[in-house]
Amino acid sequence: MFERIKSASQRLDGIAHKTPVFTSSTLNQKFNAEILFKCENFQRVGAFKFRGAYNSISQLSDEQKASGVLAYSSGNHAQAVACVGKLLGVATTIVMPSDAPEIKLAATKGYGADVIQYDPDTQVREEVAAELLEGKSLTLIPPFDHEDVIAGQGTVAYEFINEVSRLDALLAPCGGGGLLSGTAVASKNLNPKTKVYGIEPELADDATLSFKTGKIHSKPNPPTIADGTRTARVGDKTFPLICEYVDDMRTVSEEAIEQAVRFFFYRMKMVVEPSGALGLAALLTGAIKPEGRIGVIISGGNIDGPTMTQILSSGHFSEFG
Amino acid sequence: MFERIKSASQRLDGIAHKTPVFTSSTLNQKFNAEILFKCENFQRVGAFKFRGAYNSISQLSDEQKASGVLAYSSGNHAQAVACVGKLLGVATTIVMPSDAPEIKLAATKGYGADVIQYDPDTQVREEVAAELLEGKSLTLIPPFDHEDVIAGQGTVAYEFINEVSRLDALLAPCGGGGLLSGTAVASKNLNPKTKVYGIEPELADDATLSFKTGKIHSKPNPPTIADGTRTARVGDKTFPLICEYVDDMRTVSEEAIEQAVRFFFYRMKMVVEPSGALGLAALLTGAIKPEGRIGVIISGGNIDGPTMTQILSSGHFSEFG
Repeated sequence: MFERIKSASQRLDGIAHKTPVFTSSTLNQKFNAEILFKCENFQRVGAFKFRGAYNSISQLSDEQKASGVLAYSSGNHAQAVACVGKLLGVATTIVMPSDAPEIKLAATKGYGADVIQYDPDTQVREEVAAELLEGKSLTLIPPFDHEDVIAGQGTVAYEFINEVSRLDALLAPCGGGGLLSGTAVASKNLNPKTKVYGIEPELADDATLSFKTGKIHSKPNPPTIADGTRTARVGDKTFPLICEYVDDMRTVSEEAIEQAVRFFFYRMKMVVEPSGALGLAALLTGAIKPEGRIGVIISGGNIDGPTMTQILSSGHFSEFG
Repeated sequence: MFERIKSASQRLDGIAHKTPVFTSSTLNQKFNAEILFKCENFQRVGAFKFRGAYNSISQLSDEQKASGVLAYSSGNHAQAVACVGKLLGVATTIVMPSDAPEIKLAATKGYGADVIQYDPDTQVREEVAAELLEGKSLTLIPPFDHEDVIAGQGTVAYEFINEVSRLDALLAPCGGGGLLSGTAVASKNLNPKTKVYGIEPELADDATLSFKTGKIHSKPNPPTIADGTRTARVGDKTFPLICEYVDDMRTVSEEAIEQAVRFFFYRMKMVVEPSGALGLAALLTGAIKPEGRIGVIISGGNIDGPTMTQILSSGHFSEFG
C-alpha cells in the first residue's frame, strides 16, 4: 500500500492542492506543545476526498471512463467524484442520503452529477447502488473500501510528514477508515515511531469498538453532528490496515466537536466541518494528551450555514481564555 | 516611505506571520481572470494591524516602553497594540468605542490591556485619548496616521508582491488609510504599472469623496457592517500618500460586502470580517472589472458569532452558482 500511496502522490501532483500546514500560538502556549494542522478543508471540493476520487477515476480504462462511474456517499466523496468526473470528462451518478447537508448535495449537482437520493433510515446505500449497477456498465467508486481510494487519501499524511518531518503523534478522523488507514500506512512507513490515532465521535464509535475487539462492529446512521463519520462500519479493506498500523482509537463528545469548530472559527479564522474538528476535539478534552509535536489532519470544511449558526450559538469565544 | 517599509519588513521578519496567498478556481473560472488573496485574516491577532503596531512600539526608546503606550481603535488596532505590548513587556491603555465588536474587546482585554470605553455617538476618541494623555507620559500609538504604522501596514503589499511578482491591479480596503497608503507606496515602488485601488463601503465613503475632491471629508460613525472602516476620515499623513500613489477609489454596497463574506465562508473555507471582504465585493459587483492578475488584500478575520450568523442567514451558498 505504501508504494501505491507514493504513486498516488505523483499522480496528484499539480492536480490536488498542496494544502497548507497551520499552527496556533494560542494553542501551543496553552498546551506547551506544538500542534500542526494539515488543512484539507482548503483542498479542492473542500475535503481530502478529492485525492482518493482522482486517484481512482484517473486510473480507469478509456472504456470504463466512457461508460461513467457510480458512487454513494454522505457528502464529500460525492462532491469529489462529481468534481473529478467533470475534470476528466467522465459521467457520474451519485447515490446520496436524503439527510446529507444541503451544501454537499448542491455542490455535487453543481459539478453536473446525476444525484439519486435515498432514505438512510429505511434503505442501505450499498443496496441502492447495487440496483443501479444492475444491467449497466457503470464502474463503482466506493467511498473508502478500495485500494486506489485508500492510497489517494494516504497522500494527505505522506505530503504532511514530508513537509513537517518528525511528529510524535498523528491524529486523523475515522468514518469508513479510508483516510485513517491511508494515514497510518504512510506515517508508519515514513517514521515507525510516530503514534497514529484514529478519532471518532462517541455517538459513532463503531471503528473504536471494532479496533478494540478485532471484529467489525456496525452502527447504522448514528446521530452525530459529524456527518462525515456517519458511515455504519469500517471496510473489509480498511479494517485490516487500521488493525495493523493504527496505535489506538479515541472518542470525543458532540460538545467537544462543536467547541473545536468554534476554536477554528474564532482563533484560526478557518471554516472546518464537524468531522474535520475531531482531532482538535481529542486534544481539547485530553482524550489525546497534548505533548510534543502533534500532527492533526483537518479532513474538510463543508459545513452549511444553519449548522455553523447552531455551533456558534452553543458557545462563546471567551471559552478559550 | 518605501525605505521605511523595507526596514519594517526586516523588523517584522520572524515576528509577524508571513501570511499565505490563496486562490479560488471557482472564482478564476467565473471571471476568466487570476485573483490572488493575501490572507491577513491569518495574521497574528487576526488582522494586518499587528504589523503597524509592532513596527511602531518596537522602535520606542526604553524610557517610552517603560512608561507605557496609549491607543484608540474600533477594534483590530486595539488588539494589535495590546498583543505587541504583551510581547514586548510594555503596558497598554486602549480607548475603544462602546459599540466595538465584543470579540475585539475581549481579545484586547485578554492581552492584558487597560481598556477605556467611550460612546462614539457623543464623544470623539481623539479627545478621550487627549484627556488620558494629560499629565501622563504615555506614548500615543495612533491607528493609522503615523509613519511607522503606515510603514508596518505597507509590509503586507511588499511581502505579497515579492511573493507573487507581477499584478495588474491591487485592491485594499480603506478605513483611515494606513493600509491603503502603505499598500500604494509599496506597490508603486515595486511596479509602477500595477493599478492600486482603495475600496470603501458606500455608507462610509469619506475617503472616496476626499480622493475625488482633493480635500479631506469626514463621516462620523457611519452605519456600515464593515466596522474596520467606520473611521470618520483619513489622516493628515495617509491622505497625501493616497492622493499621490492610489489610482482610484471604489465603493460597494452592504449587500455586496455580506455576499463576499459568504463566498469566503462557503467557497474558500475562510473566516473573513466584513472590512476584509471589501476587495472581493468590488470584484463581485463589477465596481472593479475582474481581468488579468489581481491581488486582493484580506485585511482581517475578526468577526463575532452573531454577525456571521446574520450574514449567513441573509444569503444562500447557491448564490455562487
